[in-house]
Amino acid sequence: MNEDEFLARLFARLPAAPADVRVPPGDDCAAVDVGGGRLLLLAVDQVVAERHYHAAGPDAATAGEVGRKLLARNLSDVAAMGGHPRFCLVAGAFGPGCGEAWMGAFHEGLIALAREVGVALIGGDLATSAAGTVASLTIVGEVGSAEVVRRCGAMPGDEFWATGVFGSALRTGHHLRFVPRCAEGAWLGSRGLARAMIDVSDGLLLDALRLCRASGLSLRLAPETVPRRTPETTLDQALGDGEDYELLFAVRPADGPILRQSWPFETPLHCLGHFEAGEPGVRDLAGRPLQVCGYDHLACREGV
Amino acid sequence: MNEDEFLARLFARLPAAPADVRVPPGDDCAAVDVGGGRLLLLAVDQVVAERHYHAAGPDAATAGEVGRKLLARNLSDVAAMGGHPRFCLVAGAFGPGCGEAWMGAFHEGLIALAREVGVALIGGDLATSAAGTVASLTIVGEVGSAEVVRRCGAMPGDEFWATGVFGSALRTGHHLRFVPRCAEGAWLGSRGLARAMIDVSDGLLLDALRLCRASGLSLRLAPETVPRRTPETTLDQALGDGEDYELLFAVRPADGPILRQSWPFETPLHCLGHFEAGEPGVRDLAGRPLQVCGYDHLACREGV
Repeated sequence: MNEDEFLARLFARLPAAPADVRVPPGDDCAAVDVGGGRLLLLAVDQVVAERHYHAAGPDAATAGEVGRKLLARNLSDVAAMGGHPRFCLVAGAFGPGCGEAWMGAFHEGLIALAREVGVALIGGDLATSAAGTVASLTIVGEVGSAEVVRRCGAMPGDEFWATGVFGSALRTGHHLRFVPRCAEGAWLGSRGLARAMIDVSDGLLLDALRLCRASGLSLRLAPETVPRRTPETTLDQALGDGEDYELLFAVRPADGPILRQSWPFETPLHCLGHFEAGEPGVRDLAGRPLQVCGYDHLACREGV
Repeated sequence: MNEDEFLARLFARLPAAPADVRVPPGDDCAAVDVGGGRLLLLAVDQVVAERHYHAAGPDAATAGEVGRKLLARNLSDVAAMGGHPRFCLVAGAFGPGCGEAWMGAFHEGLIALAREVGVALIGGDLATSAAGTVASLTIVGEVGSAEVVRRCGAMPGDEFWATGVFGSALRTGHHLRFVPRCAEGAWLGSRGLARAMIDVSDGLLLDALRLCRASGLSLRLAPETVPRRTPETTLDQALGDGEDYELLFAVRPADGPILRQSWPFETPLHCLGHFEAGEPGVRDLAGRPLQVCGYDHLACREGV
């Protein structure tokens, strides 16, 4: 069973969510209605040594980079809902190689990014662990209830857009230094230009497939139009590597030109295909299925 | 440096919290004002294999007990603020010995308790880990802004009360099966009977000292009046063992008889001493300092 399947089964066994849970688990964030037209967005994500970063060797991440990455991953989830990040809570179980100096630098890296994006750290828990380091972060964001963007809003005919470039996130260190698309996500939500959205943590194709499943649609993608991070990045890497932390979103066809014209960011923006009615899946423009081979955190691929 | 000192230094380096953060980090939960006289309570806590439970051996915890304990610890933090738990998010990094069946049972144990106390699981993240299992949970609770109870509200002359009995929580398995004092905490908060409160996770004396520090008071305690879990439990164990998950709280002297008369729970209730002006610390009734030797998660004692 993979992570999506495990979580889907788990969430299916839960009692019905209370009425103030407007977006149940299964999206990038859950959303809770706190009144006044305002939703709180909540999500949790973690970094595990030798899964999400290397603790030693030539590609070793510094403690500050690990702390930064932990927050940045969560910011990306809030961005994918069109929200603004507000608060975070962090829990760390630190392994033998991660003493007081390491823990200090880890939190410094996290707090430096938190300050940049206006997020307040409001809770923490620390433990030492005889095993490797694991840290988790819960992010709390805010979004107007009319502005929230889910995975399930795409319609047949909608264009499929992406921010940024893809692939080789590990080799290039992008996975440690990426700038989460907070401003872009909030802008798309507030303008109503994204009808469905997700961030790419586990690979463009896998996260696009999640968008398809949530919206009950098929996606036609022109693979050769996917922008690649480096000249050496192969098409397979761009489609499957993961850790890009870009936004994928559905745009009403009439809004495509508006989006292109009004986009106020330097972040690259590309239309890569379109949604159509049909079995959830990703096909090329000739209708051939594209094999989805993204990163699954339970049945882990090689690499980080 | 111990956990309290590390977190205190960390929180001291943070930028000023935004205005809607009514209780900053450092209490059992942080509290965020969401309007309408309502605060959201947020806290995070974790369980680490061989720190918070044994994965093997005669005292091994089942997967379900581990999941249950993770939620129960967090419920205890909401209880200590006088709040009602509402939502939770869980992140697990599961070690080699913890496959799909273990993960399933872990979540079942957690969800069974969540259902009992009306908490909705609204987010999760899963990863495998080459090292031992670590799981964290963020709890979201609610409390009226007039009913929230902090660590810092005790006044000189206030009585020092405790729910339950103390010591031997590991040996007896109490640490896996305790019933968090949700109803008691919410009742104390709603009646205004607790002026300051904390839950005992790290030992009666250590958590009492935290109450003293937050309130800027000294505590006089009659050690022999501390109720012990078993006939074999020594006084030192009752004062220092930790993992009791009982509530310690300060009561206005005039409210002592009201509390005793109106207490609607079967949970034992004892007055163990009183607060007075003076350097934060715990002394016996003759004025002799009681050595605080509770559990610190960074400089770990032996045992779990």
